Amino acid sequence: MTEMILTDFLDRAVRVYGEKKAIIDQNDQAYTYTEINDRVNQLSHGLSALGIQKGDRVAYLAPNTLEMFEGFYGMFQVGAIMVSLNTRLKSDDYLYILNHSESKALFVDHELYDLIAPILPKLETVQSVVVHGAERSSGSYFAYDSWLQSQESAPYSRADLSENDLCSILYTSGTTGKPKGVMLTHRSNYLHALSTMHHLQVTDQDTLLHVLPMFHVNGWGSPFYYTANGATQVMQKKTDPSEILERMERYDVSVMHMAPTVLGSLIDQYKAEKRNITQDVRVVIAGAAPPQAFVKTLEEEIGFTFIQVYGMTESSPLSLISYLSSEDDDLVGDRYYEAKAKQGFEMIGSKVRVINDEGKSVPTDGKTVGELVVKGHGVMKGYWKNDEETARTIRDGWLYTGDMATVDDRHRVQVVDRKKDIIISGGENISSIEVESVFYDHSSVKEAAIVAKPDEKWGETPHAILVLREGHQATEQEMIDYARSKLAHFKCPRYVTFMDELPKTASGKIQKVYLRDLV
Amino acid sequence: MTEMILTDFLDRAVRVYGEKKAIIDQNDQAYTYTEINDRVNQLSHGLSALGIQKGDRVAYLAPNTLEMFEGFYGMFQVGAIMVSLNTRLKSDDYLYILNHSESKALFVDHELYDLIAPILPKLETVQSVVVHGAERSSGSYFAYDSWLQSQESAPYSRADLSENDLCSILYTSGTTGKPKGVMLTHRSNYLHALSTMHHLQVTDQDTLLHVLPMFHVNGWGSPFYYTANGATQVMQKKTDPSEILERMERYDVSVMHMAPTVLGSLIDQYKAEKRNITQDVRVVIAGAAPPQAFVKTLEEEIGFTFIQVYGMTESSPLSLISYLSSEDDDLVGDRYYEAKAKQGFEMIGSKVRVINDEGKSVPTDGKTVGELVVKGHGVMKGYWKNDEETARTIRDGWLYTGDMATVDDRHRVQVVDRKKDIIISGGENISSIEVESVFYDHSSVKEAAIVAKPDEKWGETPHAILVLREGHQATEQEMIDYARSKLAHFKCPRYVTFMDELPKTASGKIQKVYLRDLV
Repeated sequence: MTEMILTDFLDRAVRVYGEKKAIIDQNDQAYTYTEINDRVNQLSHGLSALGIQKGDRVAYLAPNTLEMFEGFYGMFQVGAIMVSLNTRLKSDDYLYILNHSESKALFVDHELYDLIAPILPKLETVQSVVVHGAERSSGSYFAYDSWLQSQESAPYSRADLSENDLCSILYTSGTTGKPKGVMLTHRSNYLHALSTMHHLQVTDQDTLLHVLPMFHVNGWGSPFYYTANGATQVMQKKTDPSEILERMERYDVSVMHMAPTVLGSLIDQYKAEKRNITQDVRVVIAGAAPPQAFVKTLEEEIGFTFIQVYGMTESSPLSLISYLSSEDDDLVGDRYYEAKAKQGFEMIGSKVRVINDEGKSVPTDGKTVGELVVKGHGVMKGYWKNDEETARTIRDGWLYTGDMATVDDRHRVQVVDRKKDIIISGGENISSIEVESVFYDHSSVKEAAIVAKPDEKWGETPHAILVLREGHQATEQEMIDYARSKLAHFKCPRYVTFMDELPKTASGKIQKVYLRDLV
Repeated sequence: MTEMILTDFLDRAVRVYGEKKAIIDQNDQAYTYTEINDRVNQLSHGLSALGIQKGDRVAYLAPNTLEMFEGFYGMFQVGAIMVSLNTRLKSDDYLYILNHSESKALFVDHELYDLIAPILPKLETVQSVVVHGAERSSGSYFAYDSWLQSQESAPYSRADLSENDLCSILYTSGTTGKPKGVMLTHRSNYLHALSTMHHLQVTDQDTLLHVLPMFHVNGWGSPFYYTANGATQVMQKKTDPSEILERMERYDVSVMHMAPTVLGSLIDQYKAEKRNITQDVRVVIAGAAPPQAFVKTLEEEIGFTFIQVYGMTESSPLSLISYLSSEDDDLVGDRYYEAKAKQGFEMIGSKVRVINDEGKSVPTDGKTVGELVVKGHGVMKGYWKNDEETARTIRDGWLYTGDMATVDDRHRVQVVDRKKDIIISGGENISSIEVESVFYDHSSVKEAAIVAKPDEKWGETPHAILVLREGHQATEQEMIDYARSKLAHFKCPRYVTFMDELPKTASGKIQKVYLRDLV
């Protein structure tokens, strides 16, 4: 039996596509797969020199850069476990994660070093800090470039790994309490890669713009499956829409993964500055599905192909993908966009069920809401040093996602809300996402969030928090009336708050936990 | 960890494509995936009733039929191991394989029952025979249809399987005498399926015509990956080119796998009777690559897409696939067809090397010949009850294919010869040693050598070079007739050359390399 180890993917790229332009870095410098491999070997030798061994955790705090990309493969050769840190956390969060993961080394981008400097004295296990882009080494850290260049590029004698060894621990913020470390193995990421490359139809003709941060579940594993296929990968450090469009044009980008909010600003920017983007482009979106109007604009006005996926860190992450199936020829017009904006069908290698409180599958009526549970090759090994939470989340092999969903008569799954975001008013379930999507269709609304407001009579009642587009105005009553013209009365907000901006997570998810405190 | 079990693939098809037209059988009757699943459940219950348990071998002797297809999934639920028999062998071959595999039951197509009837008394382990398409049961066998319909279609309580459990033992003719049983596991076929569906870009929009016999390495695993993707699958019992074209037209077929000889006759037939085939069609070919002119006709005149692959039973089978890579834009005209007709690049999940006698990779010059070796997830567990041959074939995890190949400067592999003297005629392996040994049994024959003679229709055909004993006489036709009385028809030489002496090495080995030049 041959073990499934992620180093296989770069190995293939080097053997088949060695002289191909592999990576275009954040400074527009190009590297072939062979050159990348040389740097990866240098990194592995360097990690060894730092005393890093199989099983050791090494943390990365970086945006999408060459240095971050090569980090994966450099670490895997040594058998080290990557702890990639979300760049939008606070210093205290990093302190917690670095100590909790017992990371032995930290690689950090020079632009983010200030977040780390104050906590250095409190780190309990970190022995070495290496700073990407630093001019020169200091008493506290190595400057990455010169440090890397001092290492040999000869092939590294790899650690003897089993496919069930960990490749990453990824900390995910719950809404309550401390972040949890999701343990993913070489096997889970390898099988996720095989399934995802198939469903996304990745080929060597692709040029991926790495818009989605690689610290997010390893960029949904994109450094693995695009590499395996010998695609070209362009690093994108910031989610600035103008810069994204410029680089899409310059590098003939064919595919991008991103959060829905980034897509929103990209669409606006595209309308403002027309770019000469003539190639076929696939845009892959996870998280809450954007409103149908959004998808329609993207496909009809801009001409990009929209692909909705569903996943979570705990499942490597993807388990659902939306596409028009061979049975969907009759879905045209609005029905086409309605189908596309659902989370879709289970990917090969994942079993997905939507179950009620008794554990029975909900009827395929597109209405009855249940919890989405996933069993499959991508499901995590568990939470790092947290057996209790692991046992709560994985039961009988099924991952309980906490997402509430429906299944329609064509077996398409639609996530309607987070379990905790569902509003229960007078005994009725109200999907905050459904109400939000109505507001997104309003020409004056830029962003919308619906949260539960405690109510003596109804238990909870929906409360709308809206951000208006620049130059637009609206009153609370106008917005309530608008909702009532579109939705069943019980689903309509009875209160509206206007804000200039909604609080968001690093991945662009609106942080309802803060909004609930306001209402 | 979730085990990789092949039943996953039909499960997904039932969940996502339950009401879709799944199978069109050999009699043009259509079944949905749900209906197929019901039959599969009936089969599993029936197998149980026959006393078949996890780990038992059950043999199948059938062309591409509904009954053969459902056999896979019916067996896998029980945890039984399928021994699928090549329909072109002789009764004595079946006797050997059935006894060697210790098969407990045999499923056989009624058109092939006559091959089995004579050996029934000599079968040592077969307890039950079930005949597909038989009108009624007899003292010796059950008629499949009525037997199946008497079983319940309720879900079958599946055997508890590990992914490393065997799913198939496939007998392949080696160079030395008796067939060897290649042991494939659920894991090897599952991972082969994931890689192959990706590289062949299988989707639910596909309609596969099952031209390649499913007894050949499970039709290269096609019942697994087309099912997983919810494709429509049309059974094709015979390789009659006119019937293939008729069914391609009728069922809007988009993809077919076949041996090069079948493609040759299909091209001829297409030219003779123009069919209204307007859909995109991919034709996937393994074995010796057809001449470039062949590929050119197929793509330019007929408009089908040609895909060359490489594999062998011992590796599930596929490990190489030919395509024009992102670096091949300059390959036009003859260079395009030259590249397409090579065996191509290693598939994701397979490592392929071409090595010299010292185990070093040959230079990528497109000229230097070495042995093709494969390491990867598809590689067999070993040969059934034959540790010696297993150890000879798999060394340090590498499968020694016995195929000789070159690698060009773009890392494309081309198979140029067989290390041993296997003759491949019409997609079937013929062991020259096996045929020679038959001649050696003839009282007039002193020495015999069988070599491959190039043949337009069959690729290769066996050519016998014989030295008669002193005072003996024989004609070419007498020798051909003799062989036909002893061997499966396709193994018989079609030409005989008589010589006074065979060229030999100093140590007395016959030098076939010189003989090939004569034929």
